[in-house]
Amino acid sequence: MHSELEFVAKLVAGLPKDVRLEVPAGDDAAVIRPPAGRRTVVTVDMLMEGVDFVLGRGCSAEAVGHKALAVNLSDLAAMGSRPEVAVVAVALPRHGGDATGHAMQSGIARLADTFGVALAGGDTNTWDGPLVVSVTAIGSVAAGAAWRRDGARPGDLILTTGRFGGSILGRHLAVEPRCREAAAIAAKFRVHAAIDVSDGLSLDLSRMMAASGTAAMLDLDALPVHADAERLAAQDGRSALEHALGDGEDFELLLVMPRDEATRLLGEWASGAWKTPLTAIGEVTSGSGVWARSKGSEPRQLAPRGYEHGFVS
Amino acid sequence: MHSELEFVAKLVAGLPKDVRLEVPAGDDAAVIRPPAGRRTVVTVDMLMEGVDFVLGRGCSAEAVGHKALAVNLSDLAAMGSRPEVAVVAVALPRHGGDATGHAMQSGIARLADTFGVALAGGDTNTWDGPLVVSVTAIGSVAAGAAWRRDGARPGDLILTTGRFGGSILGRHLAVEPRCREAAAIAAKFRVHAAIDVSDGLSLDLSRMMAASGTAAMLDLDALPVHADAERLAAQDGRSALEHALGDGEDFELLLVMPRDEATRLLGEWASGAWKTPLTAIGEVTSGSGVWARSKGSEPRQLAPRGYEHGFVS
Repeated sequence: MHSELEFVAKLVAGLPKDVRLEVPAGDDAAVIRPPAGRRTVVTVDMLMEGVDFVLGRGCSAEAVGHKALAVNLSDLAAMGSRPEVAVVAVALPRHGGDATGHAMQSGIARLADTFGVALAGGDTNTWDGPLVVSVTAIGSVAAGAAWRRDGARPGDLILTTGRFGGSILGRHLAVEPRCREAAAIAAKFRVHAAIDVSDGLSLDLSRMMAASGTAAMLDLDALPVHADAERLAAQDGRSALEHALGDGEDFELLLVMPRDEATRLLGEWASGAWKTPLTAIGEVTSGSGVWARSKGSEPRQLAPRGYEHGFVS
Repeated sequence: MHSELEFVAKLVAGLPKDVRLEVPAGDDAAVIRPPAGRRTVVTVDMLMEGVDFVLGRGCSAEAVGHKALAVNLSDLAAMGSRPEVAVVAVALPRHGGDATGHAMQSGIARLADTFGVALAGGDTNTWDGPLVVSVTAIGSVAAGAAWRRDGARPGDLILTTGRFGGSILGRHLAVEPRCREAAAIAAKFRVHAAIDVSDGLSLDLSRMMAASGTAAMLDLDALPVHADAERLAAQDGRSALEHALGDGEDFELLLVMPRDEATRLLGEWASGAWKTPLTAIGEVTSGSGVWARSKGSEPRQLAPRGYEHGFVS
């Protein structure tokens, strides 16, 4: 990590008071004073041009920068943790990469500013390949308070932030990480399990259920379907519900909570000032898999759908 | 960060006792208990196929994995910090990427094991592009004890580990991070400034001098020239000394210390069991730039040479 090449080196004003960047970018590494008594939470995500985004088609380098940090903040939110610091590694195309790098930086910096995240440094490279950006985000959480995937119990309610489906129409780039929602919920409510929906609602829910050794019963009539899912459905003939269940890149939180906690949270949420919807979409049962029911039809098991990465041998 | 895709998910046995990985890979993020009272040190480096390595020409995917972690550990060593945790993001070629990923993982895991670094998770992707790997390493250092680049003072001695030049003959891949040497020195000696040599001895030294507002006077006769530099010199007609000063990728430490501390350290080192050479190569003076002297010739200023990244507009 070298100062000469760092295009991110910004200590934002909003950094939590108990965290301090003592040696910011410009040295071999950044030195951070971690908040006393809290645990460190680390996550990394890499975005590649041509796979995660196509520059130019309604997608600026600034939007790529935004997304690269946002998906990591979403992971931290899914752990019930508070974001604090991020480092960025990029491979910039040699031709025009300087402008791309600066635009991407401003996308990253703006979002970092919004959430009080310090950009602690990075590694900037050039090559003849496509744009690649890898962000590592570091947050903190109180000891023993991290939300995990494996804590769901039969009888729990399944809640979700936001609305699902059709993210490809733009929300897959303009990701709004649910850090504030997570912090507000973590401060006052007990969450048994959580995950953020990146690869698809049914797929990510099935992962959480598998980790917990439980099953999920979704109420399809309650599922908050995004207007984008309706728009996409009108174009491609698939149903909006299918889009909501399988499109992915919604970056909303799935929260599993004891029923009474969930009820109390929903009550407070309804009377609060949150713009983000919070909806109970089903319950946890014994067994395995993700099931769905709706008025007037029998429960049926869903084949988890979503984005799966794969190799060709 | 998703468990299904993680090819690194290994908690090694050697992790320092005051660090604990509480939620390892397999959740949205890893949760780490940071050592009480210590500062967190973070660094990131990305390696790209075709730029940092060429697979096949004497370079295995395992060697790439080794190097990707090693260069980060070298950065942590240059801060006088102790490595603890790493996360890895990769873009693997779709064709054959599975085997490449596994080989790279074993290279990373072996080195992690050697230095007691916990692999806390990662993000594995596939694409039609070349291999890209980005490692973020997290370490710790006592409060106020981090070695920086900007603390050199006139009168200090400049020391270095190892030997320089000709790393392209193999050492650029088989990087040996000087973590143990750094830890041993940090525990007992006062270091004013430090940097690891990645881009070139004269270039990285000039960076440290610029950060410190000082100049360096190198004793060329004392410079530990690697046998690889001699071999390369025999091939290309440039001098071994030139190779030592400018080749880069040596990943040795440059340490600037008060003269008495340096003398004491060199004395202890000579009587110790270290295989790694430790050599005084010059001194810090007032002024700017990197200068060189040798027996029978006048001091002259060196044009810092080494690898500089750049764009084509």
